[in-house]
Amino acid sequence: MVEAQISITRELADRIREAESPQSQLVRFGPDKPLRLDAGVDLSPFQIAYQTYGALNAERSNAVLIAHALTGDQHVANTHPVTGKPGWWETMVGPGRPIDTERYFVICPNVVGACMGTTGPSSLNPRTGEPWGLDFPVITIRDMVRAQAMLLDHLGIGSLFAIAGGSMGGMQVLQWAVSYPERVFAALPIATATRHSAQNIAFHEVGRQAVMADPEWRLGRYLMEGTNPSRGLAVARMGAHITYLSDVALHRKFGRRLQDRSNHTFSFDADFQVESYLRHQGISFVERFDANSYLYLTRAMDYFDIAGDFDGVLANAFKGTPTRFCVISFTSDWLFPTSDSRAIVHALNAGGARVSFAEIASDKGHDAFLLEEPELFAIVRGFLDGAGKARGLKKA
Amino acid sequence: MVEAQISITRELADRIREAESPQSQLVRFGPDKPLRLDAGVDLSPFQIAYQTYGALNAERSNAVLIAHALTGDQHVANTHPVTGKPGWWETMVGPGRPIDTERYFVICPNVVGACMGTTGPSSLNPRTGEPWGLDFPVITIRDMVRAQAMLLDHLGIGSLFAIAGGSMGGMQVLQWAVSYPERVFAALPIATATRHSAQNIAFHEVGRQAVMADPEWRLGRYLMEGTNPSRGLAVARMGAHITYLSDVALHRKFGRRLQDRSNHTFSFDADFQVESYLRHQGISFVERFDANSYLYLTRAMDYFDIAGDFDGVLANAFKGTPTRFCVISFTSDWLFPTSDSRAIVHALNAGGARVSFAEIASDKGHDAFLLEEPELFAIVRGFLDGAGKARGLKKA
Repeated sequence: MVEAQISITRELADRIREAESPQSQLVRFGPDKPLRLDAGVDLSPFQIAYQTYGALNAERSNAVLIAHALTGDQHVANTHPVTGKPGWWETMVGPGRPIDTERYFVICPNVVGACMGTTGPSSLNPRTGEPWGLDFPVITIRDMVRAQAMLLDHLGIGSLFAIAGGSMGGMQVLQWAVSYPERVFAALPIATATRHSAQNIAFHEVGRQAVMADPEWRLGRYLMEGTNPSRGLAVARMGAHITYLSDVALHRKFGRRLQDRSNHTFSFDADFQVESYLRHQGISFVERFDANSYLYLTRAMDYFDIAGDFDGVLANAFKGTPTRFCVISFTSDWLFPTSDSRAIVHALNAGGARVSFAEIASDKGHDAFLLEEPELFAIVRGFLDGAGKARGLKKA
Repeated sequence: MVEAQISITRELADRIREAESPQSQLVRFGPDKPLRLDAGVDLSPFQIAYQTYGALNAERSNAVLIAHALTGDQHVANTHPVTGKPGWWETMVGPGRPIDTERYFVICPNVVGACMGTTGPSSLNPRTGEPWGLDFPVITIRDMVRAQAMLLDHLGIGSLFAIAGGSMGGMQVLQWAVSYPERVFAALPIATATRHSAQNIAFHEVGRQAVMADPEWRLGRYLMEGTNPSRGLAVARMGAHITYLSDVALHRKFGRRLQDRSNHTFSFDADFQVESYLRHQGISFVERFDANSYLYLTRAMDYFDIAGDFDGVLANAFKGTPTRFCVISFTSDWLFPTSDSRAIVHALNAGGARVSFAEIASDKGHDAFLLEEPELFAIVRGFLDGAGKARGLKKA
């Protein structure tokens, strides 16, 4: 079984410190600037942790916002301060990369509800001085985007040259285009959808139940009580991780190969490589992620349904939009299949938007957007080059 | 979150009683007749609980064995003694049904490792007088089949007219044809495969980790310690249940519809119908199933790999087989997709077997084999009619 291989005390202390005083750039919004949430309450004070790369040009016209996915964070193109691993999209973002930091000013904020410095359930509730836990209000994708718009205001950036993101990041991209069409020149929603499907809600619900079934979760008060629902969170991560890969990718990577042995052990040890791989995924995830944040962010994705805000007519969300779009999906992504991307494209077409669409042949499943996919890089680079010309950006 | 809505004490007592003295027909094999297991040990004494329907004819030529799936049991066509629900395949098995109990003598044994009266981890270990728990040896599909052959010997049935089963039941069907080709006249492997895929092993591993992460599991000793890992088992069941359905079926059944409310609650209640449905699936499952049995049976499926027993050449497993086969898959089954069934058919063809194959159009996913599928019923009835003629069986 998965053993918690970490010191609970040190880890919990680190988590609260990273939530309060992150190793990132930080903006704090005081009582005069509350974040108005869809839940009907104001979050105040609150803070946003973010990373930037490259330089804003004199015209302030080269800003690119990167929206991270469920388990991502602001460390898109630098070594992660907690794990020591490379940034999660270093192949995409950096000098000479498709999202070229020698040309663009790249901003990547941690989303509201997360655990790497932007206010979330592991942040301190100013009313009690203790971590929020489940007293943190349930947030939405629109809330994340609203907070990001406040960050742009703070940075003095009127409009983004582009915004890009995959999965939950793609949801933010779409919501940006709907909420602030005049502030988005070009949008790249990747491996995403305009609403979460019943199957995806179901998978999320299993993950949440796995967390909440862990007695160390303590109704969300584990940080106050010094416990750690790491086993429940590890199970949630293991289950989710399967959905990020394709059957073919799992087969190619592992097949039925045994782990460091030549025969079945006739036990519940990790006989198969795929078992020990999953256990590793679970263990390494809990070292860097907060269980309550997992609940809040999955909930935000479940609630996401753009058409629901437009009387069920998705096209109305994009009617007359000035933004140009590049929609991208992957053939083997069964979590956000190409049909979801086609629905986006149809709505954009119906709304009269300028849109290009690419379905990339890949057997790597949903995770393909994070991986070495030359066709993805070429498409993003080409789309941004074209948009840059239209925007009058200078070449790097 | 999922609450344990059952009295632990009563439930555990009931479980041990059902394992020892089931409300079924029962055969006990004494020390002279051990079950030789693939793990290299003898299980002895052991018992098999089974149900029968219809009558064996004078020639003893009309016996049909039904092999149940992971969470099934011997109560295929009668009211379940624990849940009070109809038998799990009453639409398929019964008077006038495709597997017609007015014509065939139907036998459905509970598999070794399960929890409804055939020896398994909740049975009493004769050496200690306590439930076996994790001291029960890890069993395989071949062990299940070997035990069933002993049951047939006991009943004086030399050869089966037919054997049918879906999913893990289909694995037993295939193993029967490989282990005892002369004892199987006709075989119906449905929605199954000759080996478990990496993705399926991965899903099983998550379910096992969910059970083992529950502190009430107590390293498998919960029956001795009076605890109940019901929350872990419920999470395992919820996750597995998603894989039994298709995305389309979930969408049709639930979509994003809310549960008894008109707006999101901005909480972690079951806002969506699909959430409360899954929670119900988890809760009702733990009322009738043993957590350790879940570990053992998923493990048996993971280990299943017929080609592995034949130097990787699947066709050799079926070379010169006298059995006639009817292989059936469902278009929307992504757990055991049609490609798995085609692999069976190719191997059977290469082995020179008599085989027919049907892929049934259904959007109900893997569970389709248990549901009202007229085309499935027609194919099973037609195949058995043809086989009955070849066998010289009288019409009912």
